[in-house]
This record gives sequence, C-alpha cells and structure tokens, in this order.
Amino acid sequence: MLINGKEYRSVWLEGTTLRMIDQNRLPFKFEVVDFTDHVQVAAAIRDMTVRGAPAIGAAGAYGLALAAQTAPEDRFRTSLRAARDLLISSRPTAVDLLNGVHFIYEQTLKFIPDLIHARKVALLAAEEFANSSAEDCRLIGEIGAEIIPDGARILTHCNAGALATVDWGTALAVVRMAHRQGKRIFVYVDETRPRLQGSRLTAFELEQEGIPHAIITDSAGGFYFWKNEIDLVITGADRVCLNGDIANKIGTYEKAVLAHEHKIPFYVAVPLSTFDLSCREGKDIPIEIRGEDEIKLLGDSRISNPGSSALNPSFDITPARFITGGIITPKGIFKAKEAPHKVQV
Amino acid sequence: MLINGKEYRSVWLEGTTLRMIDQNRLPFKFEVVDFTDHVQVAAAIRDMTVRGAPAIGAAGAYGLALAAQTAPEDRFRTSLRAARDLLISSRPTAVDLLNGVHFIYEQTLKFIPDLIHARKVALLAAEEFANSSAEDCRLIGEIGAEIIPDGARILTHCNAGALATVDWGTALAVVRMAHRQGKRIFVYVDETRPRLQGSRLTAFELEQEGIPHAIITDSAGGFYFWKNEIDLVITGADRVCLNGDIANKIGTYEKAVLAHEHKIPFYVAVPLSTFDLSCREGKDIPIEIRGEDEIKLLGDSRISNPGSSALNPSFDITPARFITGGIITPKGIFKAKEAPHKVQV
Repeated sequence: MLINGKEYRSVWLEGTTLRMIDQNRLPFKFEVVDFTDHVQVAAAIRDMTVRGAPAIGAAGAYGLALAAQTAPEDRFRTSLRAARDLLISSRPTAVDLLNGVHFIYEQTLKFIPDLIHARKVALLAAEEFANSSAEDCRLIGEIGAEIIPDGARILTHCNAGALATVDWGTALAVVRMAHRQGKRIFVYVDETRPRLQGSRLTAFELEQEGIPHAIITDSAGGFYFWKNEIDLVITGADRVCLNGDIANKIGTYEKAVLAHEHKIPFYVAVPLSTFDLSCREGKDIPIEIRGEDEIKLLGDSRISNPGSSALNPSFDITPARFITGGIITPKGIFKAKEAPHKVQV
Repeated sequence: MLINGKEYRSVWLEGTTLRMIDQNRLPFKFEVVDFTDHVQVAAAIRDMTVRGAPAIGAAGAYGLALAAQTAPEDRFRTSLRAARDLLISSRPTAVDLLNGVHFIYEQTLKFIPDLIHARKVALLAAEEFANSSAEDCRLIGEIGAEIIPDGARILTHCNAGALATVDWGTALAVVRMAHRQGKRIFVYVDETRPRLQGSRLTAFELEQEGIPHAIITDSAGGFYFWKNEIDLVITGADRVCLNGDIANKIGTYEKAVLAHEHKIPFYVAVPLSTFDLSCREGKDIPIEIRGEDEIKLLGDSRISNPGSSALNPSFDITPARFITGGIITPKGIFKAKEAPHKVQV
C-alpha cells in the first residue's frame, strides 16, 4: 500500500526483526514498531498494534518464526509449542492467526533435530505465508472488481484494507481495484465503534488512494439504505465456517440484515487463510469479548456514565443466507454456502 | 426525576427566568443554566443544552413566553412572530417544538391589545404546555408498563428519558414504571453516536433509578438479537406521521429492522405533542443534518482521519410496519397505523 507515496506492507520481516505499522496511532501518527521476541508480538496482537484477520495471521506466523530463532536447543520443541500457544491465545476469533501460527509450527517441526535448518525454515515459511496472503488479496481485488458497477455507492464496515492484511486488503482490495480501473465510486465508511477502525484506518487508506468517501456513524447506514443511496455492501471476515456463516467486526450482522431487507447485495471478501473447515457453523466461532474501557473511555477521557458498565463483544456472526452477493476469494466469487467447498478444490 | 436525591424537571420556569439542566455536561457535571431571553433559548436548543422532542417543545414554549415579556408594545405582534420563527427554526425534526411554540403564539395573540394580560397568558400557557407534557409522560409510564414482562431484557436507543421530556420520559417512563412495580428488568443502552445520549444520559438516568443496565455500541444490538437476549425494543420519537411512520434519532430504523427480522416487538412511546397529523408519511419529515465535527471530533480531540469528510444525519425514518409492538401514548397503546387517529378522539 502507498503511505505518503511510499510502498509498505502492514507487517514485514527485516533479518530477524519483525516490523509493523502501529495501527493504534494511525492516522494521527505514522510509526513503525520493531519486534525481536514473540512475547512482544503476542502483546501487539492483543493490544491491536496490528489488527485485521489476515494481518494478525501473518504477524502470528512471523512471531513464531522469531520464537524459533531463540528457542533453546535443549527444549526447542517445548519452547516452540509454548510460543505457538501464547500467540494463538492472543486473540480468539480470527482463524487466520491459528492458520498462520500452525503453518510455521508444522513446517519447523519437520526439520528437528536439525535446528539450524529448522530456524531457517521457520523464517522462510513465515515469509511464504505472508507473501501468499498478500497475493491472495491482490487476486481478490482483481477478481472482485467486476462486482463494482461504474457509479457504485458502496458501504463498508471496519477496516478490511491493506492495513488489515499484509497488503492490498480484502474488501478494500476490491474497491481499490475498481477505482484503479477508472470506475467512479463512492464509499460510505462506518466509523466502527468502539475502536474506530473505519473512521481512522479505512478513511485513511481511501484518502491515500484518492477514492471519494465519507465517514458515517455505525447506525446511519440504515438511513442511506432507506434513501436508496447504497448499491452494495462489502466487508472482510475473521472466519468463514463450513456452512458459509462468517464472523466479522461487531456491527457486520446488522448491515447484512439491513442490506437483505433492502435487497442490496452483501459481499464478504477473504483470503484462503480465513476459511475454517473444522468449524461447522457460526455458533461454533468463539467471540472475543474485550474490555469495557474501549467503550467507556476515549484515550484517557471518560465519555460515558461513570457508574455504568458496558458490554463489548468484538465480533458478531452473519449467517450465510444474509451474504446475498457472495464470498469473494482468490479462487473466484462463490455463493456463501458453496465457497468453503469451492476453495478446497 | 430524581438527581442525587432531589426532584428535578429538565426545564422549568422561576418567575421570568427559564432554567434548564445542561445536558451537554451530564453526567460529568450537573449544572443548571438560566435564560431570560428567547434568543439564548433558541441557541440552547440548537446546541443541545436541552434536547429530546418533548423537552425542546417545552423549552420552545417557555422561550416564546419569555419573548412576550420583553416584546416592545409598539410592535408586539411582529416581535412575537419573529421570536416564534427563530425558535421554530432552531431544530427542524421534532414536531413538539413547532407544537409548543405555536400553542403559546396562538394563546398570546388572543389577548392583544391587552398586553399585560397577553404577557401573563404567555407564561401561564407555557406552564400549562409543560405540565401537560409531563403528565402525558407519567401516563405513558403507567399505561406502558404492562408491555414489560418480569425478567424482560430491553433494548433502547438514544435518551427517551426524563431529560428528553419535561419529566418521566417516554420510553424510559415505561421502563421506570415497570421497575417501580418490582419487575426485574435489564436494559441494553445503545451509546448513540455521535453525541452519546445513550451512554451519557440514559445510563445516568438508569443508574439514578437503580435499574440494571449495560452500555453497548450502536452496532452491537444485532449480536444480542442473534443470541436471543433481547425481548423487546422501546424508543421515543421526534415526530409521528398520519400513517404511523416515525422519525427518531439516527439508528432507530436499524434497530426496528433487526427487531422485525427477529420477531421481537418494537415499541415507540410518545406524548400527544409528538403527533403531526399534517405530515402524511415519513418521507415528508425534514431530517436535520448536523455538522461533521460531531463525528470527527470528541471534545477538542480529533478522532477520525483528518482528510476525510463525514455525513451526519441526526434522525432517520422508521416506517409504521416496523413498529410491530405499537405506539404507547397517554391515551393507550395502539397499532402504529391507528395511533394518529386514536389519539385524536
């Protein structure tokens, strides 16, 4: 992605240093933070320095590769397993994290007891995972752009952009590619409380690409549906189940129901790492409940009634039947129920 | 309403001073502000020192009564008309404001050229309007409490509490009364971006009454519907049309569609001043579009991408067919389509 004219990924490796754009500070400050230790990486995933399912998948993969570099020889396997479990437990909903970490774990174990080789493979496998994730996203953009008609008014929720992935984005890869093809488009950007990934990150990416857009509050979409001013909805996802149900940022389900009511197509765009064929249906996906201070405070300022508590589910489930447009994958656009089977072929 | 153990109204008259609770500062600071001039009152309505359809209806009525006290003898009628137009134009969507101001205007004009009498009548009529509005709300609570089953989990949006009215509230009058009847209830409070009337004001009122509740983001309701953890939805309204369509705080429509999808009853509670029989359907209601800084800033802090613009419709329209529970009025609970006719009888 271009940031101030320079090409970046959200996470990348330099030698044995993992670097990432600090997404908690964007768009007010552009800062790259460095990690040499998987414990710090797990903390960065938890505190959302890096966020977005494919991006934390890559961060987790790189994190385990870092762990392999420093795991002591005499208990390499045990250390690697502990690092794997720590990284996986840093956030529960996005399956990309599980997939990324497991991939490195399996690849690395193959070469034990040759630790020099195993360590090298860990780094190479993480690089391969990240590259393949970025390439998935580029393909999503190429394949998905066809769904965007010239003049389309598009609603998106949260940030499914280059920042949420290694590069390109998922939902925003489609938007980005349509724009580069010269289609005139307009994007309604849900601000996405409580952490404002929409008004901070999606708006930032769209501005960097010169794509016309406006921020709206999370509950204003319905008004624009009612006015017939939205032509399609597109979001990313944190997990796609075997039956086509998805988990995504809290609020996605509401938009899907609204789109369904208004007969507006609702699309989900995901790389292959977001499919979880071991998960039968949406109800099986663990939903992360984050702390109430994300809602009650903004920075250090208290913004809600001090004596009240808050509930902060970070994701919701959108059943397959509401994904009326389909699921856009690197292998094609499929009906939600069919996508998990089609991508396997 | 009780605030820190003392009984208050949201707006009230002392002599020829209009006093109101500053709702922009609650719940962090409890402050009463004084007005002797209708121009200041119009500004306080515009900047939302006082907000909520019935409350701004009363504030407008009192504001015009203040104008009558100081309107010069030689151009009393012209001055009063100018004051009427200024007050009415301070916010466009809530019809209570129109109704309150017009009522005082008509009552006062009757006594011209006896200005001493006209001025006295203006004050008395404003007091009558406010008292009748408060009594309407008390009745809404008494009549509406029957819809709340013991153990009910209730979702509400924005603040339709005592602060939004002269006293008691509309949606919250029902909740308050059910609680006082000993019913065990739990309220999900939408925070209600951009101005957070839910997490600031509704949460504050519920805490003052000791009613169990939790704040959620505006897009989390869908998750709790999906989990079958919401039994009914109740909101206020800013205008009820002849066909039963309503305008209410942005986001209301989304909750109504969600409730409809989940076959959960959706209720609207309003005093008589909120009906507008001259308004045929929702499309005829003017929707206030407020400034983008309500979304882009929080206090003085920038919270969204500086280079992006924001769209800030303050209300949306909920068609009558989504008000599946009915409209709760001081005259009874009616189907949405029938309510405008029933309250006339």
